[in-house]
Amino acid sequence: MKKYKADIIVTLKKGVRDPQGAAVDTVLKRTGIQEIAQVQTGKFFTLDVTGSDETNAKAKLDTICREVLSNPVLESYKVERFVEL
Amino acid sequence: MKKYKADIIVTLKKGVRDPQGAAVDTVLKRTGIQEIAQVQTGKFFTLDVTGSDETNAKAKLDTICREVLSNPVLESYKVERFVEL
Repeated sequence: MKKYKADIIVTLKKGVRDPQGAAVDTVLKRTGIQEIAQVQTGKFFTLDVTGSDETNAKAKLDTICREVLSNPVLESYKVERFVEL
Repeated sequence: MKKYKADIIVTLKKGVRDPQGAAVDTVLKRTGIQEIAQVQTGKFFTLDVTGSDETNAKAKLDTICREVLSNPVLESYKVERFVEL
């Protein structure tokens, strides 16, 4: 059994409203820090995943991302890092 | 004026309780997907920042991260990507 550490970024799909991002935009504009920032928000996860080999662990990670960490209707995910421990 | 796009990851500092991560851990264990996942959660931001040069834009980005995107008492941030547009 091999063990891997993965970093996952979950972001909203294009066209999905991002009120948290819009709120940060407003703050940055109102305070004069940055006129147009086009902030987009997302979620970040670090987790350990085990598997008989890398292919097996990556398949399991995809299941976790699709079924637990993201809502595939509104969000997409990206495996930012995948390293053996 | 130069324009840059930055990706920021905000995570909880060591020792700060992460109930959302614990909740994901519980789900992964209960469903039998992954016994020990040690999930840690964070926030992800993509934004545009302008400046007279790279140093100036990076300094502004640090201000944004410290004062708007994170709570420095509980969270730390990392600039994951910084590219000129």
